[in-house]
Amino acid sequence: MAGSTTNPPLKDELDIVIPTIRNLDFLEMWRPFFQPYHLIIVQDGDPSRTIKVPDGFDYDLYNRNDINKLLGPRASCISFKDSACRCFGYMVSKKKYIFTIDDDCFVAKDPSGNDINALQQHIQNLLSPSTPYFFNTLYDPFQEGNDFVRGYPFSLREGVPTAVSHGLWLNIPDYDAPTQLVKPLERNTRYVNTVMTIPKGTLFPMCGMNLAFDRDLIGPAMYFGLMGEGQPIGRYDDMWAGWCTKVICDHLGLGIKTGLPYIWHSKASNPFVNLKKEYNGIYWQEEIIPFFQQATLSKDCTTVQKCYVELSKQVKEKLGKIDPYFTKLGDAMVTWIEAWDELNPPKDSAAIPNGAAK
Amino acid sequence: MAGSTTNPPLKDELDIVIPTIRNLDFLEMWRPFFQPYHLIIVQDGDPSRTIKVPDGFDYDLYNRNDINKLLGPRASCISFKDSACRCFGYMVSKKKYIFTIDDDCFVAKDPSGNDINALQQHIQNLLSPSTPYFFNTLYDPFQEGNDFVRGYPFSLREGVPTAVSHGLWLNIPDYDAPTQLVKPLERNTRYVNTVMTIPKGTLFPMCGMNLAFDRDLIGPAMYFGLMGEGQPIGRYDDMWAGWCTKVICDHLGLGIKTGLPYIWHSKASNPFVNLKKEYNGIYWQEEIIPFFQQATLSKDCTTVQKCYVELSKQVKEKLGKIDPYFTKLGDAMVTWIEAWDELNPPKDSAAIPNGAAK
Repeated sequence: MAGSTTNPPLKDELDIVIPTIRNLDFLEMWRPFFQPYHLIIVQDGDPSRTIKVPDGFDYDLYNRNDINKLLGPRASCISFKDSACRCFGYMVSKKKYIFTIDDDCFVAKDPSGNDINALQQHIQNLLSPSTPYFFNTLYDPFQEGNDFVRGYPFSLREGVPTAVSHGLWLNIPDYDAPTQLVKPLERNTRYVNTVMTIPKGTLFPMCGMNLAFDRDLIGPAMYFGLMGEGQPIGRYDDMWAGWCTKVICDHLGLGIKTGLPYIWHSKASNPFVNLKKEYNGIYWQEEIIPFFQQATLSKDCTTVQKCYVELSKQVKEKLGKIDPYFTKLGDAMVTWIEAWDELNPPKDSAAIPNGAAK
Repeated sequence: MAGSTTNPPLKDELDIVIPTIRNLDFLEMWRPFFQPYHLIIVQDGDPSRTIKVPDGFDYDLYNRNDINKLLGPRASCISFKDSACRCFGYMVSKKKYIFTIDDDCFVAKDPSGNDINALQQHIQNLLSPSTPYFFNTLYDPFQEGNDFVRGYPFSLREGVPTAVSHGLWLNIPDYDAPTQLVKPLERNTRYVNTVMTIPKGTLFPMCGMNLAFDRDLIGPAMYFGLMGEGQPIGRYDDMWAGWCTKVICDHLGLGIKTGLPYIWHSKASNPFVNLKKEYNGIYWQEEIIPFFQQATLSKDCTTVQKCYVELSKQVKEKLGKIDPYFTKLGDAMVTWIEAWDELNPPKDSAAIPNGAAK
């Protein structure tokens, strides 16, 4: 099946969002898997530089000029010179599902030596329910050959809709700069053949390298924050999105899966550069994580947007004390939601799916 | 290494507890792994029947007469004609660690075809810390070749002591009777090469087939309840112990790991018999699980015993409404702790480990 482009799943319902592509091998390697889909490439740096996309791909490329033109003053919420700008792609997509991947991630092989179709596994994860309320010791009961074990309450077996599928990385693991410095030779060779739901109430470090989500269910929470040029922090874009997303998924009764699929992460980024980007985050996360662990949302928060705006207020109030950056970030969270709603006007609630009424 | 009996880990600190052995192949198959250890066999039924243990094993065998003799009236808390009686073995052990296994569980093979030394993996799990406060997407950071991923708070990387190691099963999965009936041919062939900590606040279905724990840290919570003859329920012994243990571990800051090692579960028990044992539990667990999910223990509960006695009061108060069985069970929980403390008198708190003072 790997490499087959006939009948690609969700062909018209999924966009692939990629921050700047520096490596042309990237698209060539993924061609059999990605070519059926629409790509959204968001260029993170100088808009006068051009990105060459090989023939045969259906894509839109957005640079900083495009972002400024589309969002006007609200473009301030989109990071510059940082791959966090990719979240602009989530906003302009019109599809139900998003898959996002970094340009140093290649096709991995499973233990039998076959190419892993990461996109297909993400889609399987997103299309099957999650089970956040009780732990299943044989992992995802919706994987083939699996089920709920003895003692799993029957009332919880229906599960909840899956909003996020978080994939992993063979070869170079996703380590922070201190760990990179201390263990420069460590490689991830352990292929763990499973998927699982992250339990309700448990936070996790969400990595944006190999990530898929249901835009209709959770899109507006997938804001990658203010990173890069002019900001005191980097490499916490996906972490920020992950903390917010998990709190909101828990509140709204949505699930997050992690595990398969693996991609091959080809090269470690420079640990010295990373350390400079990360040092504030490494310090701040000691307060940020308890904040998100304790965050609760009011009953009025019935949509992702409402949840996100309420969370932005709590961020300003409680994290603003750490550093003025968080006040700015709280404001940017609101700007992001305004921009999202402008580009994605609410669908007419009077419309009935079968078209019987107007 | 498999099969080596030189230098068995924790040889003088671990007992293997087995309920009635019906199958003599069982011990023969495990001989290379179990022979260095002391076995405690707890016979679940008719004390006049004898269990033949092959030569070369160091063991104690307890039948009902022994239990009655040792515990007197308190023997009422130990189940009769049910493998739940195994918890008597936890009580009479004098060792720090317990490994318990069913007699229909054999040595499994890893994907390379090598025999899995389950005991050794359990010991590795128990001797390395757990990480219940934040999810590590590469699973147990203390496994070889693993570490904490980017975004994992540094203040939480020390982890907490591991109290329980919950192993899994290849071949016949641990299904309830309804699932057994519906999927009689399903076999577990998925070898998931990992171990992970079950997050704080998340309950799980603990199976007693392939289980190890630190008796000093959590022993008194490993009560397998009232099952079998004269009781309205069976096959919830390990579940009961798991719910209580998880709540107490969360309260005391202890960890529970699940995943590796696998054993080979050779045969499914009779689903019709199981259904008769389980039907009350299947119904009751819909209320029991929310009870345990919401259970909190007071700050005074600083030992496992104190936690367990407080939990027994809550069981009587809140679950007693479901069925009089839970009032009886709450009383038995207290009896269990009394018996435990009688057989395991508190160590002299004035004694100093290095023997310098008296």
